[in-house]
This record gives sequence, structure tokens and C-alpha cells, in this order.
Amino acid sequence: MTDSDVDTIVARALDGDRAALARVVSLVEQGGEPARVASAQYHRQAGHAWVVGITGAPGAGKSTLTDRLVATLLERGAAGELGDSQRAGEARVGVLAIDPTSPFTGGAILGDRVRMQEHATDPRVFIRSMATRGHLGGLSASAPQAARLLDAAGYDWVIVETVGVGQVEVEVAGHADTTVVVVNPGWGDAVQANKAGLMEIADVFVVNKADRAGARDAVRELDAMLELSVARDWRPPILSTVATAGEGIAELADALETHRAHLESVGEVAARRRARAAEELTAVAVELVAHDALARCNGPEFDALVDAVACGSTDPYEAAARLLGSR
Amino acid sequence: MTDSDVDTIVARALDGDRAALARVVSLVEQGGEPARVASAQYHRQAGHAWVVGITGAPGAGKSTLTDRLVATLLERGAAGELGDSQRAGEARVGVLAIDPTSPFTGGAILGDRVRMQEHATDPRVFIRSMATRGHLGGLSASAPQAARLLDAAGYDWVIVETVGVGQVEVEVAGHADTTVVVVNPGWGDAVQANKAGLMEIADVFVVNKADRAGARDAVRELDAMLELSVARDWRPPILSTVATAGEGIAELADALETHRAHLESVGEVAARRRARAAEELTAVAVELVAHDALARCNGPEFDALVDAVACGSTDPYEAAARLLGSR
Repeated sequence: MTDSDVDTIVARALDGDRAALARVVSLVEQGGEPARVASAQYHRQAGHAWVVGITGAPGAGKSTLTDRLVATLLERGAAGELGDSQRAGEARVGVLAIDPTSPFTGGAILGDRVRMQEHATDPRVFIRSMATRGHLGGLSASAPQAARLLDAAGYDWVIVETVGVGQVEVEVAGHADTTVVVVNPGWGDAVQANKAGLMEIADVFVVNKADRAGARDAVRELDAMLELSVARDWRPPILSTVATAGEGIAELADALETHRAHLESVGEVAARRRARAAEELTAVAVELVAHDALARCNGPEFDALVDAVACGSTDPYEAAARLLGSR
Repeated sequence: MTDSDVDTIVARALDGDRAALARVVSLVEQGGEPARVASAQYHRQAGHAWVVGITGAPGAGKSTLTDRLVATLLERGAAGELGDSQRAGEARVGVLAIDPTSPFTGGAILGDRVRMQEHATDPRVFIRSMATRGHLGGLSASAPQAARLLDAAGYDWVIVETVGVGQVEVEVAGHADTTVVVVNPGWGDAVQANKAGLMEIADVFVVNKADRAGARDAVRELDAMLELSVARDWRPPILSTVATAGEGIAELADALETHRAHLESVGEVAARRRARAAEELTAVAVELVAHDALARCNGPEFDALVDAVACGSTDPYEAAARLLGSR
């Protein structure tokens, strides 16, 4: 694909062509030169969307919650609640489902994605699963880039739903404008460690499946933990939802709007976005050098160095230095 | 820590000092210059241990299984079953529990580690949890390096138990000499996707919690899937265990020995170890360049470039190129 081809398809994507947009997301996902060329074109158009991160343990009901939230945001947008939409009161919502491609949860993810199909034909909605494995299994630069692309393409809300539960996914969600942490009744058993970490990233807590036993205890426990946390100028609300029945979704949409108004009023939006830009730049810088290193691992010297490491005549650090030394 | 300090402590670790060994694992985990210096010293001593990877979904009972397996391997070693031990019939077993530091599963991990403490005071056993996050959440070079270190320190068996379920952990386990995949009755529901991927890495299947309903179905299903797989010269046995009761552990230890004998007889050990060396070299090469890139992200130019990305006056690829350009 030539640079000019990339330019053409990005222009179409930014102009509202959803098929073109899907192709550009794929380019971003694959990284390399086309991703670079595309970024140069869409990056400057972004900055209008509100990015919502949704994270939580598997089975917490994040996809159903996202599904219902999309419907509610669309309704509200149509009623003229959103300020940034350029389309006379119509809201557009983009969803990125970040999938660490775990062999152990992939099936459930596919099921979720099928469920989301009710929005798939709605021209105001763009839904995309992304397998965001970077070099050596890390997060690639693609998730934040894709969020920025959807922003540039005119989506008012970009929901980044992390399907997995790893630190990486929590970090992705944590770099949103508003981060929603979803738990279930009995979450104390399932989420034993690093509650402090979740406290740190959550702007909104949702106790989903709140029709189950223990829901009130879960709310009480979260509340008690917030009491013990370092005081911030925003205290995350704790909402109860039954996503499958659509209960509590309006309150969740309200909480997103309230948090947004709060960040705007205290002037913290720019700080959050600067932090996100720092993450983006770091991820891209590492991706570029890793790409270069991996190219050398396909180069002519690699096999002999592997043999040397395998037989113990050199260690991998020395071998790597030699591999990279001829840069 | 000077290079000479590192040399001293590595020498002590290789000489059997477990406290020193624990410190060297920490150095390896932290990466950077001390890890490089240490590797140069221990790398050449390795190559005698048999590395066993154990992977499977969370809650499958991997830690209990590992715990029981360690006890059985120790008993057998004392009976002179192991060829490589230099200590008159005594076996030594190292365990690395690879933890992707998920905030959602950390608690369970800690619980498991506490359970493993029954071996903690046994001088023939070394147990260590490792948080193997590399740059941007990927696997660092530390897990395979630590396995090699334990090998060099004279452990006859090195068990690499992956606590998480991501692709990364499966890959770590998949680069062992013998890879054990642990499932439970009803696993078909829990492990819906990428069964083919699991088929590919498994040298031994274990249906743990085999006293539960559906155990025979799980065995039958695995067997049927193996029938459909590409024929290899080794057909993975399917074992049933109840790790909590110690049932089936002797058969698991037998299967490890049989698989080892098989690989040795067909001359495939060297091929597996060469593949592992290639992974090691790749991981170290990427780590070295990423380390360099991240140093630049702490450098004087970074802040101005982040501002430019945040305000949209440049895109992250262009900014990263500038950041790295002054190499």
C-alpha cells in the first residue's frame, strides 16, 4: 500500500466512510509505515471526543453494560445533550474492545461481540475489536492511536472497553477521560489484590448484576475504601446497575456527563490529555525501536548468534549487543 | 551495585547460597546492566536442568499440582531416578511462578504462594514469584533468564508455572522442555477459543479436579481433539489428577520422564533449546533498545514533544522520530 493509497483511505474515513474507517483501524493495528502515514493525517483532527474507559474482571458484564450505554448515549445525543457534535443534535459513538487475545477467554469475547451486533448496522455507531498485542506480548501503540482515529473521524464518545484483566488493559482504561471500573456483588473475593490500584484509576464505580445477593455489601465496601483513600477533588460515585435489564444505565450516562463537567470546570482535561499524549509518544517510540530490533532478528546474523547462545558460548546480552551493534 | 558486587553474589548463588540466588533473581527481574553482568557469568553454566512449563486457566489448580509435583520429584530424586544431579541421588527443584501482576487475580496468587510455603524451608527447593512485566506491559526477558539462572545454580528441574492466562504466559510455558496444560472438568465451556493453540503447545494434558462431574467427558473431548490434530511423533498423554488429594501425581511425574526420554531418543532436545535461545535473544534485543528509548522519554526533549502531540501540532510518530533521531 503506497503512502498515497493510505492518504486516500484515511481521507475517506475522516469523511464518514465506515468501511474505510475499519480499514484504517486495521492499518493502525498492524503498525509500521502505513500506521505512521495515517497518523500524520488524522492526528491533528482529533481532540473533540470524550474517551470513556471501561474495565473490570471477566464476566462482570462489561460488554452488556457498554451495549446499553451506547444506546443511552445515542438517545441523549439526539436530544441535543452533547456539545461537540457537529451534526445537529446527533451523537456518534465509537467502541473499541481491546482484546489481549487470550486463548482462555477468546470464546467469551466472540460471544460478546455477537451481542453487540444490534448496533452494528447503526450508522451512528462504530464497533471494533482490537487484538492489541505488541512486541513480546506487550500493548502496542495501536489502542490509543485507534481511539484518536475515531475521535478524528467525528465520534463524540469513544468507549475503550478492555476485555482482559491484565495490568495493561487497566492502564489502557486508566488513560481515558473518564474511567469506569465494573465490579459485581462478591467482588471482594474475586478482586483481592491491588484494590488500591483500582481506586486510583476509577472515576466511576459500577456494581453490575446488582440484583444479586451481596450488592449492597459491595457498595458499602467500595464506599469504605473510598473513605480510606487519599482525598481527591472528585469522589467517584458508586452506581448499581443490572445491565441485562437496562437498569441504572441512565445514571451511568449522567455520571459520565457530571465527571466531564467536573474535569472541565477544574481545568483538568488538558492535564489528562497531556498524560495520554505522553503515553502515546512513549508507546510509539518503543514500537519504532522494537520494530528495528525485530527486523535484525530476521536478518542474516541472527541464526549464528542463536547457535552461540544455545550452546552456551555466549550469553544473550552479549549476542544482542552484537546483533544491534551493526546498526 | 558495581559489576564486581554482581560477580560476587552470582558466584555465591551458583555455589548454592539460596539467599544470594534470590537476590540474583531480583537483579534479573529488574533488568539493565546488573542483569547483563549476571547473565555473562551464569549463562555458560546452564543446560542441565529439565524445564517444565505448567499453564492453564485460573482456578484450574496449577499451584496445588505444582506443589505436589515438587514433592514427588524430590522423592524420586532421592531414589536416584534423575541422571543429571551432581549430588548423589538428591534432586533439586526450582519453581518460578510467573505473575503478570494483574490487579484482578493478585490475591489468589498470594494465597497460592502461601500454600507453597511447605517447601520453603526445604534446602532442595527454590520457589520464587516473578512479576514479569516488560516495557509497556509485555513480557520482559526476565522469565527465561531466571529459568536459566536456576538451571546454572544446579536445579535439576525448573518448573515455570504461569499464573495468568494471557497469550504471553502460554508462550512462556510453551518454551519449556515439557509443557503441561491443566484443564478442569467442564473446561470446554471455560476455554472456548484457541483450543488449537493449546493443542499445539501441550506435551502433557492434565484434567485436574477429576473427582468432579464431567471429568470423563473432558478426557474424551481432549482425546477427540487430539485425533483431529496434525499427527506428531509424540501424542500427549491425558492424565486425570486430584491435586488436593495427591492423586495422579506419580503418573504426571512418569509422563514428564517419558516425554523427556522421548525427546532425547528422537534428538529433539537441542531443537527445543535452540528455539528457546532464539526467544531469549529476541527478548533481550528488544529489551535493550526499549531501555534506550525509555531513557529518552526521561530526557530533556520529551516534555516539549509531548506538548506538541497533546496540542495536535505534531503526531506521535513524527515526535518519536525526533526523540529517537538524536541517537
